[in-house]
Amino acid sequence: MNNTLEFREGDLIRIRLPSGEVLEGIVMPATEFSSRDVIIIKLENGYNVGICIKDAKIEVVKRAIVEVGREAPMERTVIKGKGSHKILFLSTGGTIMSRVEYETGAVRPAINATELAEMVPNIDEMVSEIHLIEMYRLLSENLTPREWSNIALNVGNAFRDGFDAVIVAHGTDTMAYTAAAVAFAVRNAPGPTIFVGAQRSSDRPSTDAVLNLRASLITACKAPFAESVVAMHGTTSDTYVLIHRGVKVRKMHSSRRDAFQSVNDYPLAKVTFPKGEFKLLNKRYIPREGDRSKLVLRPEFSDKVFLLKMFPGMPCDIIDYLIDRGYKAIVIEGTGLGHIRDPCIKSIKRAIEEGLVVVMTTQTLFGRINMKVYTTGRKLIKAGVLSADDMLPEVAYVKLSWLVGNYGSDAEKIKELFTSNLVNEINPIHDHRLYPRWYHGD
Amino acid sequence: MNNTLEFREGDLIRIRLPSGEVLEGIVMPATEFSSRDVIIIKLENGYNVGICIKDAKIEVVKRAIVEVGREAPMERTVIKGKGSHKILFLSTGGTIMSRVEYETGAVRPAINATELAEMVPNIDEMVSEIHLIEMYRLLSENLTPREWSNIALNVGNAFRDGFDAVIVAHGTDTMAYTAAAVAFAVRNAPGPTIFVGAQRSSDRPSTDAVLNLRASLITACKAPFAESVVAMHGTTSDTYVLIHRGVKVRKMHSSRRDAFQSVNDYPLAKVTFPKGEFKLLNKRYIPREGDRSKLVLRPEFSDKVFLLKMFPGMPCDIIDYLIDRGYKAIVIEGTGLGHIRDPCIKSIKRAIEEGLVVVMTTQTLFGRINMKVYTTGRKLIKAGVLSADDMLPEVAYVKLSWLVGNYGSDAEKIKELFTSNLVNEINPIHDHRLYPRWYHGD
Repeated sequence: MNNTLEFREGDLIRIRLPSGEVLEGIVMPATEFSSRDVIIIKLENGYNVGICIKDAKIEVVKRAIVEVGREAPMERTVIKGKGSHKILFLSTGGTIMSRVEYETGAVRPAINATELAEMVPNIDEMVSEIHLIEMYRLLSENLTPREWSNIALNVGNAFRDGFDAVIVAHGTDTMAYTAAAVAFAVRNAPGPTIFVGAQRSSDRPSTDAVLNLRASLITACKAPFAESVVAMHGTTSDTYVLIHRGVKVRKMHSSRRDAFQSVNDYPLAKVTFPKGEFKLLNKRYIPREGDRSKLVLRPEFSDKVFLLKMFPGMPCDIIDYLIDRGYKAIVIEGTGLGHIRDPCIKSIKRAIEEGLVVVMTTQTLFGRINMKVYTTGRKLIKAGVLSADDMLPEVAYVKLSWLVGNYGSDAEKIKELFTSNLVNEINPIHDHRLYPRWYHGD
Repeated sequence: MNNTLEFREGDLIRIRLPSGEVLEGIVMPATEFSSRDVIIIKLENGYNVGICIKDAKIEVVKRAIVEVGREAPMERTVIKGKGSHKILFLSTGGTIMSRVEYETGAVRPAINATELAEMVPNIDEMVSEIHLIEMYRLLSENLTPREWSNIALNVGNAFRDGFDAVIVAHGTDTMAYTAAAVAFAVRNAPGPTIFVGAQRSSDRPSTDAVLNLRASLITACKAPFAESVVAMHGTTSDTYVLIHRGVKVRKMHSSRRDAFQSVNDYPLAKVTFPKGEFKLLNKRYIPREGDRSKLVLRPEFSDKVFLLKMFPGMPCDIIDYLIDRGYKAIVIEGTGLGHIRDPCIKSIKRAIEEGLVVVMTTQTLFGRINMKVYTTGRKLIKAGVLSADDMLPEVAYVKLSWLVGNYGSDAEKIKELFTSNLVNEINPIHDHRLYPRWYHGD
C-alpha cells in the first residue's frame, strides 16, 4: 500500500523513518523534486525539508480542513436586505468567478459582493442577508474528494448556523461531481444547495454568469426542495435556466451554454427570463426540512475509489494494480447493459475476494444496468459485482467515495447503501421523453 | 515491460528462458492456473505445458490471423440472384445472430442464409451473390484489437476479391469501436462496410434485427458512399433505420432500439420503411472507388494503447504505471475543453519524454477540445499533448491503436496522422442542431 493515498497537502503528519527517527510537519505542495517516494514537509521550526518516505510509517496528526466560520473563520462580505432568506454564497473558483485572463497565479475573482447584488433586481426584497465567502480559487479539474469534504462541511455548518440556502460558485468541468458529493454528504437540510457556474467568463458580453446567478438566487428563495442542484442555462439563448438534480446531471458539451443536462431524470425546475419566474418541473424531490436539528452531515470522502472505463482489449492487470495499491472500491464504466470483457472477470473476482466493492455502470450513460440478460452479466453478478441501476458512472463514483469515506471498514453496509436509493440518484421510472431527440435531417 | 502485451491466444511464440532453454508453441487460452507470469502453450508434440515467463524473452513467430477465404478458407453459404451486387455477409456474433438463451458454450446463430434472404423482399433482384460466413461467435464486449485486425483483413480481402459491399453482423456493445477500426484500416474501397446489430434478439416479436438487416442490404446496394457505417434503428418504432458514420457514432442507451446516435456529425443516410427507400442525409462522405487496385489495407492494431477517463482526484501514478508497462499511447478522456488535474501533468510530461503519444478527448462527448482557453490546457499543449478535436474518446482510442499498430516506431508520423482528418473522424463544422434536444417539461 502506498503512503501517498493517506495524506494530502496541508495535513500535519508524523513520519517514523526506518531508522527510528520521528519527524512531524505539514505536507507542502509537490515540486519538481518530489516523487512517489519523496515529499516536502514544513517542520515546526519553519524549515521545508524533503523526506524519503520509502518504508516509512506515516500517520496523519491533523487534517487540513478548511472550515468556514468555525476554527479558521474566513473573510466574509455581508449584504443585508428586507427579505426573509439568509443565504451563504461560497465561491470555489472557475470561469464564473474569473476574468478572461485566467492564468496561473493570477486568478482573481471578477465578481464581488456588490456586483453580485447588482445582478439581481430587488435582491434586497428577497433576502435578509447574503454572506459572500471566497473559499477556493480553483479550476474545477483540480478539485478532489478532499475539497468535496470541505465544501460539504461548510454547507452543512451553514445550515446549522441558520442559513436557508447555500449557493456554490464552481468551475463547470467537475461541477456535477461536487454537486453529487454534497447531495450525499448533507441530508435533511432546511434548504437547497445550488451550484452555479458559467461557460463564458463574466466580463464577456456573451456571459451566461449573470442569468445563472440570478436563477440560483431565485431558486435559493423559492424552491420547495432541499436538494443539491445545478443551475445552468437550459438553452443557448437567455430564455431559461434549468435547475438540475445534482445526482442526475452531467456536463454534456465542452463549450455550449446549455452544456448541463439531466440524464435519466427530468430537471427539478426552471427559472424563466426576463421575468425570473420559478417553475417546478419534477414532483419527485426532497422537501425542505423545517427542523434544523434533523440535519445529518457526513462530509467524509475517500480517495481510494477508482472509476475505470472499459474499452475493447482493456488489460485486466489494471484491476490487479488497483487491488495491490490499496483501493477500496472500483466503479466500472462497462458497455451496454453492464458488461466487461470476459478475461477480466477473474481479476474482478479477486478484487471482491480481497474485500473491494465493485460496481457496474454503463458508458452509454442513458438507460439502466441489467446484468441478468447476457452470460457476461450473469457471471459478473455471480462474482459479486453490484448494479448501479441508472446511476451515471460519475455519480456512482462519488457515491462510493462517500460510502468508503464514511463506512470504510464495513463492506456489507457499503453494499447495502450503494444499492439503496438515498437521494433520488436512482430514478425508478423512465419514460420515453427522457432520451433526448437527435436531429436526423428532416 | 510485460510480455503479456506482446502476444495473444493462438499465436505461435518462441520463448527463451533465463536458463537458455528455447521452447516453441501456440499460446492457449488462459486457465485458472494462468497468471501474469505463467502461460499455457501447446508444444509441437501436442502437449500443453505451463511456462513461467518471468524474465523470459519472447518473440512471436506467427500471428494467429483468421483470414477468411485465403490461407484457411471458412465454410460459406452462397445465395445467387439476378441483381448486380456481390455482397459478403460476415457474422461475428452478438444478439442479432443469437437466440434468447444466450448462454456460455451454447451460442448458436439464429439466422441462416435462407432466413436472411427471406427478410428482404426481392433480394434476388438486388444482388448477384451473397456469401454468408460465420467468422466468430463472440459477445462484442470480448472483441479486442486482435479481432478488429482479422475483421478488417477480411473486409479488405473481400473488396479485392470482387465484392461490392460487406455487411458485418456484430454485438452492439462495442460495434461502434469495430466500425471505427474498419474505417481506418480499409481505405479507398469500392463500397461500404455496414455494421448491423440488434437490441432485441431475432426470435422475439419486438426484434429490431429484421429491419436493421433489410436496411443494411439496401445500403449495400444503393449507398453512394464507401465508408464503414452502422445501420441501426433511428426511432423506437419501425419507421426508419439510420446509417451512421462509423467514426462518429456511439451507443448512447443501454436498451433502446434507437440506442445508436451520431455525435458531432449527422448520420450519412436513412432507410425508411415500409417502402425501403434510401435517403442521403449528409453530403460529406467518401465516395465509392471504382478502381479496386487503389484499395489500401492496413489491418494492424496495437493493444498498447490505453483509454483513461479522468475523474476528480484521479491518482497520477496510474500514468506512470502505463509508462512502466510499455504502453505506446494514452487517450485521456478529460473534462470540459480538455483538462486533467494539474498534479498529473508531471506524469504526462514523463510519458511524452519517454516517447508515448498522449492525446486529449472530452468526457462531455459533444463539442470540441480547445486547450488554448485555460491555464491547464495551455500547460498540456506545452507538455506535448495532442488535441483530438471533436473525435469521440472511443474513436481517438481506435485511431491511436491503428496508428501504433501500423507506424509503431515512428512517433512523429503517428502525431502527424493523429491530428489529420483521415476518414471524416473530425467534423470541421458544427451547427446548433448537432446537439440533441432534451425534453425540459414544456
